[in-house]
Amino acid sequence: MKSKVQQARSILREKDIQCWIILEREQRDKSIELLLGQGFIGESAFILTGEKTIAVVASYDRERVQNMEVHTYTRGIRDVLPGILREMNISRMYMNFSEHDHTVDSLTYGLFLKFSQILKEIHYKGEILSSEVFLEDLRSVKTREERDRIREAVRITEEIFDELPTMVQEGITERELMQKMVDLTRRKGCELAWNDPAISFGLDTELGHRMPSDRKLKRNESIHIDFGVKYEGYCSDLQRVFFFGGEPPQKMVRAFETIRRAQQESMEAIKPGKKGYEIDAVARTIITESGYPEYNHGLGHQIGREVHDGGCILGPLWERYEKSAVKEIKQGNVFTIEPSITGEVNMGLEDDIVVEKKAELLSHPQKEIIMI
Amino acid sequence: MKSKVQQARSILREKDIQCWIILEREQRDKSIELLLGQGFIGESAFILTGEKTIAVVASYDRERVQNMEVHTYTRGIRDVLPGILREMNISRMYMNFSEHDHTVDSLTYGLFLKFSQILKEIHYKGEILSSEVFLEDLRSVKTREERDRIREAVRITEEIFDELPTMVQEGITERELMQKMVDLTRRKGCELAWNDPAISFGLDTELGHRMPSDRKLKRNESIHIDFGVKYEGYCSDLQRVFFFGGEPPQKMVRAFETIRRAQQESMEAIKPGKKGYEIDAVARTIITESGYPEYNHGLGHQIGREVHDGGCILGPLWERYEKSAVKEIKQGNVFTIEPSITGEVNMGLEDDIVVEKKAELLSHPQKEIIMI
Repeated sequence: MKSKVQQARSILREKDIQCWIILEREQRDKSIELLLGQGFIGESAFILTGEKTIAVVASYDRERVQNMEVHTYTRGIRDVLPGILREMNISRMYMNFSEHDHTVDSLTYGLFLKFSQILKEIHYKGEILSSEVFLEDLRSVKTREERDRIREAVRITEEIFDELPTMVQEGITERELMQKMVDLTRRKGCELAWNDPAISFGLDTELGHRMPSDRKLKRNESIHIDFGVKYEGYCSDLQRVFFFGGEPPQKMVRAFETIRRAQQESMEAIKPGKKGYEIDAVARTIITESGYPEYNHGLGHQIGREVHDGGCILGPLWERYEKSAVKEIKQGNVFTIEPSITGEVNMGLEDDIVVEKKAELLSHPQKEIIMI
Repeated sequence: MKSKVQQARSILREKDIQCWIILEREQRDKSIELLLGQGFIGESAFILTGEKTIAVVASYDRERVQNMEVHTYTRGIRDVLPGILREMNISRMYMNFSEHDHTVDSLTYGLFLKFSQILKEIHYKGEILSSEVFLEDLRSVKTREERDRIREAVRITEEIFDELPTMVQEGITERELMQKMVDLTRRKGCELAWNDPAISFGLDTELGHRMPSDRKLKRNESIHIDFGVKYEGYCSDLQRVFFFGGEPPQKMVRAFETIRRAQQESMEAIKPGKKGYEIDAVARTIITESGYPEYNHGLGHQIGREVHDGGCILGPLWERYEKSAVKEIKQGNVFTIEPSITGEVNMGLEDDIVVEKKAELLSHPQKEIIMI
């Protein structure tokens, strides 16, 4: 993923960012994985400028760093880091914290306190600013290679959904069916995109981040699944609905058609330069004007290394989304589109798109309720 | 894992801790997983006292919380959290940050800033203290159930090592052999204890957190593996050495015997109440007095939900270990014991122990270099 470091440098130059400092420990910082494709165990510091990258790592992590200026320590990072910072003569440093974007917000408070001590020792008088002003673009404008990996993750997920009818039988529990999907994911050499993917039997079951239960599948019952895999570090995220052992009831078909229309029309509204909340509003209006309550989440989020990959969100202007929902959609962003309906019928559909001149589908939306 | 919440409450009462506040988002806080066996996606707050637990979660996370007082929000956590905090009338709150213990240091700086705003709004005048004073004990004094899970993770890892001779052949690369171990781990229904387990062909290859390479196995060559699995959320961590296609050279056997002795004697020195650095010194002295350079890491770390599980470390009094190495060993701690030798011969052995009245082995140390 050398291209991601190059992309970072060119963004830093373009935005006139003097210096980005990333503190890493126990593979916690999400931007290090983004830049270098791996994390580091020992306490580490990475200093990026428009021209070069400097790494300060524990000696046992030395072999993991290539193509940059490397300094190692054995006893502690304080033996090396202050000297390097002093020499660089920095006046504005950008670090990974953000109140609203968890993919930027990797710096822990304890590490920040420790680093503040070092800054005090070297009499640092400059500013410490949030890296979100460039990190969100770096994460969310996907390179060709990143898009290919997401595309492959989506393809594998669709293969798994295609095999679902062979896994289902009367009396199987939500937990057992999910386990079969997880096993198949691993046999295909992938990991889950997130722990605890969701599966719900029955139209009356509320969706959301619910754990699979011991509820047994009966004839004439719906199956809703929210599932994704991680392929070479990149995620997919899809929702599909099935009906087992009979003809789906009319209210389910009506909900399905409404959600599909909300998906299609909101996708058609996507263009670079549009704002997240504008797209959410298209789907939300279709759902409510069809007589359903509005969904209690956003229409879509970005996917990448994280299944919730930060940056612009296609969400309403509620407190928890507002800072991300006012952002602009950019070419190279990859979004989920996942309107849902709650109440008498609980159902959602989710597909993944990449933004080019307009939204282009990465997945193949289901055209009807899949009957098993 | 309800027992872990009970253990937490009794520690809070015992240490007279008024209130522990955990802020969670996107499954990042390690103590939430420890307490509840799962993380939360939406921005959440958990408030623990000696008497009760209060959860504030997004409405779509509602179904994940049981056996506690639950408040939900749809638009944002600020709609609910300030009122709850105001009513509790707190004067000292403990939060998850630590300069030296990454398992405690889960609170991110961005969330801390956001929370500070809330505290300002409610005119909070009290202190904010580090939860490490009780969280380290809570993590590292393992319950019976936690020990059983680690024991099972160790057993499965040993099974995988037992199958190694059937996976090895001349010309296989480090990367290919590691992939076979990873596949077997998944077939056994486990995950890796950490990304990128290490494998090194040849005595001349430096160990450490190195990625498997395309180096091909030759006859008369050593294999060193550092590997662990996660079983029901709990980790193992073992190192084993093999020799392929011949008799190991004398210098390898001598290094093996020295490391084994360093393991055995340091294990015998372990007792509740001893300090971490005292145990490290036993092994370090044996290695150096045998004429080898001292190893550039600690003798052992705790394992649990994390493969580096925080708390007391069996390490030297170097800056990066000192705060953890002066801590006392306690009954119920689970440690790795992993001295190593570098230089002409690069080799390490690693076994896992639980501290009762003395160290009790969870793994079965290899008695000799395994010949393939």
